[in-house]
Parts: sequence; structure tokens; C-alpha cells
Amino acid sequence: MNYPLAQRMDRMKASEIREMLKLTRRPEVISFAGGLPAPEAFPVKEMQEVAARMLATRGCEVMQYSTTEGEPDLREWIAARMAARLQTAVTPDEVLITSGSQQGLDLSGKVLLDEGDSVLCESPTYLAAIQCFTAYRAQFVEVPTDDDGMLPEELDRRLRSAHRPKVVYVIPDFQNPTGRCWSLERRRRFMEVVAAHEVVVLEDNPYGELRFEGVALPALKALDRRNQVVMLATFSKILCPGLRLGWVAAPAPLLEKYVLVKQGADLHTSTLTQRLAADYVHEYDLDAAIGRIRELYRGRRNLMVAALERELPPGVRFTRPSGGLFLWVELPEQLSGRDLLARCLQHDVAFVPGGSFFPCGGHENTARLNFSNMPEARIEEGIRRFALAIREMLAETAVAATANA
Amino acid sequence: MNYPLAQRMDRMKASEIREMLKLTRRPEVISFAGGLPAPEAFPVKEMQEVAARMLATRGCEVMQYSTTEGEPDLREWIAARMAARLQTAVTPDEVLITSGSQQGLDLSGKVLLDEGDSVLCESPTYLAAIQCFTAYRAQFVEVPTDDDGMLPEELDRRLRSAHRPKVVYVIPDFQNPTGRCWSLERRRRFMEVVAAHEVVVLEDNPYGELRFEGVALPALKALDRRNQVVMLATFSKILCPGLRLGWVAAPAPLLEKYVLVKQGADLHTSTLTQRLAADYVHEYDLDAAIGRIRELYRGRRNLMVAALERELPPGVRFTRPSGGLFLWVELPEQLSGRDLLARCLQHDVAFVPGGSFFPCGGHENTARLNFSNMPEARIEEGIRRFALAIREMLAETAVAATANA
Repeated sequence: MNYPLAQRMDRMKASEIREMLKLTRRPEVISFAGGLPAPEAFPVKEMQEVAARMLATRGCEVMQYSTTEGEPDLREWIAARMAARLQTAVTPDEVLITSGSQQGLDLSGKVLLDEGDSVLCESPTYLAAIQCFTAYRAQFVEVPTDDDGMLPEELDRRLRSAHRPKVVYVIPDFQNPTGRCWSLERRRRFMEVVAAHEVVVLEDNPYGELRFEGVALPALKALDRRNQVVMLATFSKILCPGLRLGWVAAPAPLLEKYVLVKQGADLHTSTLTQRLAADYVHEYDLDAAIGRIRELYRGRRNLMVAALERELPPGVRFTRPSGGLFLWVELPEQLSGRDLLARCLQHDVAFVPGGSFFPCGGHENTARLNFSNMPEARIEEGIRRFALAIREMLAETAVAATANA
Repeated sequence: MNYPLAQRMDRMKASEIREMLKLTRRPEVISFAGGLPAPEAFPVKEMQEVAARMLATRGCEVMQYSTTEGEPDLREWIAARMAARLQTAVTPDEVLITSGSQQGLDLSGKVLLDEGDSVLCESPTYLAAIQCFTAYRAQFVEVPTDDDGMLPEELDRRLRSAHRPKVVYVIPDFQNPTGRCWSLERRRRFMEVVAAHEVVVLEDNPYGELRFEGVALPALKALDRRNQVVMLATFSKILCPGLRLGWVAAPAPLLEKYVLVKQGADLHTSTLTQRLAADYVHEYDLDAAIGRIRELYRGRRNLMVAALERELPPGVRFTRPSGGLFLWVELPEQLSGRDLLARCLQHDVAFVPGGSFFPCGGHENTARLNFSNMPEARIEEGIRRFALAIREMLAETAVAATANA
């Protein structure tokens, strides 16, 4: 049987890196590869209490179908929290509960993207967003980005020249993969630039609450005068990812379209997981829980940064993020992240080669390291091995260069 | 702001019927409109026990990310149960856990359908499948269908003449909306016909286990010699829908594509709800629970059929399904299901007008009635009101006809 696949499947390939990373499931491997939260920060005891009360008092209700938009009190809570934390003016009616924020990306593609439309993004950007929009046969335009965020003039030029620019996809807070956080000034300039174009800004904000130092900056959505910004967010990093709960906050005329598309995609997100999250945030102190996560991750970030400073050879640079889950390493140009991963796996340590985060290719001499998931002792040991592998490869390329000379 | 929507959104409209049915949320309305299981059959106490044990023993694990394919022991259980109940030879590796079987439909569209491809379907067919494939800009070809299933010669002719036929979408067991179940002979003939064409058969089987009488027939997937059938199934009707848990069973080369697409759509289905279902089926007697559901629905089907026989005026026909959740009413030609719904809402009774289940339009003199969700007394009273509304409208059209004569 020759399966009559859709054309979009031509570009959908199982990533070779994902295959390599399957090797990291061995318990002896120290993995900086995933984007997993620290499970020791999950409020397991509280979730037990919430589940027990919920099933005792409204078991039939949480096991039944519910509305596509999501649980009303959860949408209210989200709107209120966004107002308090991100300075937005989103109403509960502008919130749609999704099956993780990955679904927010997918619904965005379905609502907005035709084949050949351009998605402008940071360089580098989030890998799963690249995969998701590839399924809609969009083309990517990478916008040069520095430590303060996307470069506004470069964005403006590309918005003018791109083929049917539809979406500008950005992660202004503690970006995956680089960990960088846009400055307030850059956020303002960005919003000025996009306001002159009929594009939708997709502001992906999974990590905004995980700030280790400094003050929170307003979301792009808070600076939005034209109802141009759609925000994607999630409970995965502030509560736990196993519930698969996220949300889309979009202007009403656009949210209506998201609801239609969500209906066809999965009818609605699990009533039971929505109620678990809703009851948890009503009955427990989420801020205290997030405070503990921040504390834990800050310590791990400190440890990883200190280990990298101590262990890495000269010529290797890395970011020092003030929040989130990731930092970003730039290797000397002659080193490839893919080759380094193969070498690292021999030393039982793993990371994600950075090249995959550039939709237009190149930048193979980069690496993403996750610092949230591994316990402290493994971070120190893992970075020792990571640096050792780099030194080995640098020595070999030096020998090869001498031999060729 | 003029939102730059994708072209697929042109055909995605909020259904006017869905808007009307929002009125049925008033508690005084007797609703035969939804497709809701009976909540009194949910195993709430067992789910309490499962949740308590699960969170006490592996809380961190169920709150963490997991694999796209789904929980291995749940996939094994599904493959074994399909073998036992449906006579299939599906392996655990050919099973993907989805967020409800609606997601199975959506993933199928994404893997298989380009704009303009033809989807052949029963006439009538499942409303949410129409909405879902419409988002992929497919065109529908309705195949004439009688009480034994799709007519094989008609299918063959349309497979030969349709523009790029890709998918034949069918619900052979207790179909939504008609309740009909294909005969064994028709299943065999159907598989002979499709075997001569390079099309994928999507066999949607949410209701197969809810048989009230007679013996179970083999699934199309069990009669599949060419690895041509993809089966969609769900826990929604045998356990509960609030978990949003379904599965796709597809030949390995095709399942691989579903996994890629699922990854972009929502990474994976909730670890927690998967574990709830897995632990439930391991620790409790699902067959006994399904037996209770069957008993309950059989009684309600009997009650509704008897009430319809007693109350309906001559000229109204309806199906007497031997399983599932729905029966189907054909009104006299001069009556429109939409108008009847408006009248019924005045009497505080609701159903779904049948016209929506025909993707190519027409057949407005039809209605779908759900018999699983309303308690017994409300079924009797509801059918009384439903029949009253029909008699009122027939009397009015007779008066109008006389006046016009």
C-alpha cells in the first residue's frame, strides 16, 4: 500500500537529533538536553488533596464533556493573573484553555497560515515552533537578534520585503533556546515597528514567571495598542507539564476563530486536568510554589554558570540568563554541535546541538543546555564532562590542522 | 486591525445550530441534542481510589512530560483488547494515544489531506468529522448508504470518479447520527472494493463496545489485508469523556507520520489522564462497567423507541439501533428539522436537526436524538413534547396548504 500522504508531510521528518537523544534515557546519562522542569518542585501532596476533594465532591462533572473555551473560573483566574503580573487588560472571554501551549502554536498555524506565508522569528528560535509551522508549509524569516531582543530596524526591513508576512513569533522572556530577555526599550520599539504592519504577533511566554533577579517587564501584550498580540502561555513551568494545560489570550474576533479550530482539533481540553489546576490555584499558594521553583532554578543556574566558567577552554562563550530553564553556548567555529553531542554521549552527558534552532540553517557551532532538571551534583559532573569533550575535540582539530599544514 | 487569516478559515463558521443549542443549558430543557454519556455510569468511586494510589506512589512521574506515543502499558492493553474484541492484529507499536478520538480525526486530516482532496463518507455522517476535514479544505463525496452500510457499487463508482480520493471515512458500528450497524456481508464487500484503490479507510469506532443485542462483528481493520485501515477509538464512551483519551491504530509506516504530527500538535496527551485510565483498566473490571453502561442505555433505547412508537403521528420514521447513543428520525418532507427545533425549544425539548450531518446539504427533514444522557422520566416526557411539536407543525402546514389552495 502506497499511502497517499498530504504534501505537508514531505518536510516533516523525525529529527536525527531526537533519535540520538533517545540514547540519553539510560539512567547513567547526565542530560542537559530536555526542557523538563524539576520534578522535586511539583506540588504532589497538594495535588493529592485537590484530586481527592474534587472527585469526592464533583466526580461526575469532571469526568464529563465540557465546553471548548474551558472552565470559566480558570479563565477568570488567568485573566486576573495576567493583569497583575504582565500588566495586560485581557478579559476572561479572551482566554481559551489549550492542551499545553504547544497546542496554542498549532491552533495559531491553523488560524493564520497558508502555504508560503512568512513567519518572522528570532534567530535562533524555539524548535517545536519551527516543526509546528512547517506543518502549515510556512516559510521562516530569521530576524537578527541581540541580547536585548529582536533588532527593530532589521525586523522592519524584513516585514517590508518578506513574502506575505503573517506572523512575528517571539519569546521575549528567557527565550528557549538562548535564555535571553528583551529589554523594555526594545519591547517598545518592537511594538512601534509591528504596529505599522498587518501582522499578528505571537508572544510565547512559558517562562516569564521564572525570573531569578531584577524586575518583571511588561509583556508585549501589555504594550499592544492595536489588538495585534496573541499570547501563548502554560501551566507546565509554574505547576507541572503532565496536565498538558496552557492557554491562548487573543483579541475577541481572533479568539473566536481559535475556538472554532480547537473544536475540530480535540473538542476541548480535559475537564479533569482543568479542574485540578483551577482548584489548586484557588486553594493553594501558587506564588509560594513558584518562589520555590525560582529558588531551585536560580541555584542550578548559578552552579552551571560557575562550572562553565571554571571548566570551559578559552574561545567558548555562553549566556548568563536571569530566568527560565536554558542557557546557550557558542563554540569555536570549527566545532560542530552535532559532532560534540556524539562525543558527549560517549562521556554519558547530553545537550541539544544549537543548529536545529535556526530554521534557515547554519550556526552549527552552538549548543543549548538545560539547567532546571538535573540535581546539583550531576550539573557539576555533567559540565566537567561537557568541557572535557570540547577540549578533546579542540585538541583533535588542532592535531588535524597541524597534520594538514 | 485586519487579521490576516488563513484561507481555510473562510469555510469555518460557528454553527447556527450550536448557537441555538446553547439555549438548552437551562435545566428545564430536556435535551436529546448532545452526545453525552450518562454520568451516573461513570466509575467515580473507582477513579477516586485510582487517583489516590497513583498520586501517592508515582506523583512526580504523572505530573511530568512523557512520550508522544503514549504510556507503553496502555498501548499494550489497547492492542490486546482490540485483538480480543475486534479480532484485529494490531501491535502496541501501532497504537498512538490521542487527546480524544476527535484528535485522531484531526491528525488524520493533517497526515493525509491536501486542499481539494476527496473524502468519501456515509450519507449522513458525523458532524465533527465534517468540520474537522473542512479545515483541511477537503471536499466531501457522500456515498449512498442503507441500513446494512455503504453501498459497495456506489462506493466503487465514486472512488473511480472522485477528484483525488484520499480517504473513505466510515463509522460501521452504531453510527453517529443514524445508529445503524453494518452487516458482516457489507463489511466484506466494502473491503473488497477499497482494496482496489489507493485510499486510506478511516474506521471511526467510538461505540462498538456498546452493543445491546446480537453478536459483535469483526471490525473493518480485522478484515484488512492491505494495511489500508486506520482505526480511531476512544475511552469516552466506555469509561468517561472528561479525560479526553482516545487512540489511533494505524499500520506502522503511517503511525510514524501520525506521531510526527501529534508532536507538533500538543507534544503528547496528559500523562496524568493516561495513567488514570491505565491504572483503572489494570485494577478494575472494565467489562463489568461496560456491561452496566449497556444495560442502562438498552433500557433508555427501549423507552425512547416505545415512546416514539406511541406518540409519533403517521409518516414519521425512525431507526431502532441495537447499540450506541443515537437514533435517527425522518420527518415528513414538508417539515424542516431546523424549524422543528425552534418549535421544540418553546416546549423545552431539544435535538439536533439532521441536515447538518449531510456535508453536501439537503435532507433537512431529519433529526438526531440521543438516548444515553437523559434519565428515564425525562425521556418519556421529552418524546411526548417532541411529538407534540411535530403534530403542531403538521397541523399548521395543513392549514397553510388549505389556505393556499
